[in-house]
Amino acid sequence: MWNQVKQPTLLLDEQKCKANIKKMFAKAQKYNLQFRPHFKTHQSLEIGRWFKEVGVEKITVSSLQMAKYFAPEWKDMTVAFPVNILEIDTINELSKDIQLNILLESLDAIYFLKEKLENSVGFFIKIDVGTQRTGIQAENIDLVDEILKTCQDSENLNFKGFLAHTGHTYSCQSKECVLKAHQGSQKLLQALKAHYQSHFPDLIISYGDTPSCSLSDDFSGIDEIRPGNFVFYDWMQYQIGSCAIDEIAVAMACPVVTLHPERKEVVLYGGAVHFSKDFIIGDLGTQNFGQVIDKTNTNWNSISRKAYLKKLSQEHGILSVPDEEMDEYKVGELVLILPIHSCLTANLMQQYQTLDGKEIQIM
Amino acid sequence: MWNQVKQPTLLLDEQKCKANIKKMFAKAQKYNLQFRPHFKTHQSLEIGRWFKEVGVEKITVSSLQMAKYFAPEWKDMTVAFPVNILEIDTINELSKDIQLNILLESLDAIYFLKEKLENSVGFFIKIDVGTQRTGIQAENIDLVDEILKTCQDSENLNFKGFLAHTGHTYSCQSKECVLKAHQGSQKLLQALKAHYQSHFPDLIISYGDTPSCSLSDDFSGIDEIRPGNFVFYDWMQYQIGSCAIDEIAVAMACPVVTLHPERKEVVLYGGAVHFSKDFIIGDLGTQNFGQVIDKTNTNWNSISRKAYLKKLSQEHGILSVPDEEMDEYKVGELVLILPIHSCLTANLMQQYQTLDGKEIQIM
Repeated sequence: MWNQVKQPTLLLDEQKCKANIKKMFAKAQKYNLQFRPHFKTHQSLEIGRWFKEVGVEKITVSSLQMAKYFAPEWKDMTVAFPVNILEIDTINELSKDIQLNILLESLDAIYFLKEKLENSVGFFIKIDVGTQRTGIQAENIDLVDEILKTCQDSENLNFKGFLAHTGHTYSCQSKECVLKAHQGSQKLLQALKAHYQSHFPDLIISYGDTPSCSLSDDFSGIDEIRPGNFVFYDWMQYQIGSCAIDEIAVAMACPVVTLHPERKEVVLYGGAVHFSKDFIIGDLGTQNFGQVIDKTNTNWNSISRKAYLKKLSQEHGILSVPDEEMDEYKVGELVLILPIHSCLTANLMQQYQTLDGKEIQIM
Repeated sequence: MWNQVKQPTLLLDEQKCKANIKKMFAKAQKYNLQFRPHFKTHQSLEIGRWFKEVGVEKITVSSLQMAKYFAPEWKDMTVAFPVNILEIDTINELSKDIQLNILLESLDAIYFLKEKLENSVGFFIKIDVGTQRTGIQAENIDLVDEILKTCQDSENLNFKGFLAHTGHTYSCQSKECVLKAHQGSQKLLQALKAHYQSHFPDLIISYGDTPSCSLSDDFSGIDEIRPGNFVFYDWMQYQIGSCAIDEIAVAMACPVVTLHPERKEVVLYGGAVHFSKDFIIGDLGTQNFGQVIDKTNTNWNSISRKAYLKKLSQEHGILSVPDEEMDEYKVGELVLILPIHSCLTANLMQQYQTLDGKEIQIM
């Protein structure tokens, strides 16, 4: 079926995807962790149901807009993004019907929420474990105390615990590097838990990132995991070491439109509006916007090809192709490519096509 | 109105946009050029009508999908992308009703089309004037001759002329650099025209790229221009020198969600799924994913701010803010940002909001 596509198409291997879900769910169970997968990667009610089938009940999203989309089917959601107080109406609307958890780190936001919240919401304090994107330094007990004190007299702000995301694992290229970052985060969070647990015996340490959750076997001190990307994985995760090639559940199918053997290039219909412009730096120091993968009649499982997307414009993708592979490409045929960052590619493509031809929409 | 938005929103200054359209239309008239603007930037039927109002009748699009979207209102379209033969059914469907022009450079595609085309289409031979993305080298007369000969006996393939895009102007940072690239292309195309004009007295030299069309006053030898980005411009075009600050017709409005003065950062709700991950390298050698611009109550016209987007993740934008500007940012307020590449930002945002609050959808 999939080899009948005529335009850039995001293929989804349903079996691999379901296997990834089962594997991570089993891992959470094994380590006695609550599993609250992040749905920002797939953004799809239908794929969400595959999580329901294995027993998942709580999810993470990255925006209130996404929370609204999932609200008909999911009644316990954490919005893992610093609360945007301009959307107070949406917060009040959602929190009528569902258990909504938000992320706090700014006192100004808290003063506002204390006045405007109409229903009870859970809150996590966002802890920066070294990624330096958002959050309070784990050592900044004074600020944590001030936040807790400020929220204390609000009946609508219910402290759930501390939430962290070891985003700096994304710059790793080995399991050792990921585990080192993970252990660093874990230590900070364990100290925080030890400090506050007597006052808040039910506090949750919520922990994210696909590399750590995929590679670690030590989650002591952690209560909940929120990986998202593992549902599909991608070429970046493979480079980090988070997954095997045959666990990557999505691939782009792109038509070849012209060949330029004189400069070892093949031009594909498939550009920045399909893949996104995320890249990794490849072995030769060059930008790689997507990796060609071998195709069989039914799917993809191995890489023997060296060709990769060296450049993207709006609709064009330029493959860099070694001499010995040039004969593999013909105008009007399809090439399969592993996206660098499946979250952004899915967000652009707006739908998946399974290998038996079923279309799955995203929000 | 616009300062009431609550989520990342792509604002469109309708007056600036219409002024950009009028200015480029007038320039085409002044130099006796056919004007076939590229609609891949705005991708909107409604904005297309603003072109109709000034007298535009023919357009350029970047995909057959986009041609289908515009077909109800536009009857003469060039798809400025190497023809994707897998979409032969769409070509046959569209060419029933409209003047459809396609781009040829590959003999394999031509053999296929000769067999499968059901209606007459125009074709341009794509000429590579130095960008090295697609096209035949301008000096490769043998291949041009072979293509023309191969198409000669097809009643459905009608030769229109040569089409080129001086895409390498995008690496310029001065008018001089743009004009040098433009003149190089022009010379190649003039030679081609001189060579073929006696055989094809009606042949058209169709020429693209916003920087050249914005900055040049010499279009001799060129018959048609196809700029697209000029409809909005953006921070990249301003860096190239294509436009003035007050000609940039789009800006993103993004809520501030948290402040990190200790590392001179402000976190916005507005990330890779809003801006795209296109960046330029700024003065200090750092990546810039968007430039903060001063706002008034009604719009934006000048830049006194140095703050810029230094990093994007899926929904987060991290502003780098000089010490002296830090006080300008408050949680829950909006920041206006000029996108680096308005085509990709518009494609992600899927709609515009005009300054008086009207919503304009894109395809």
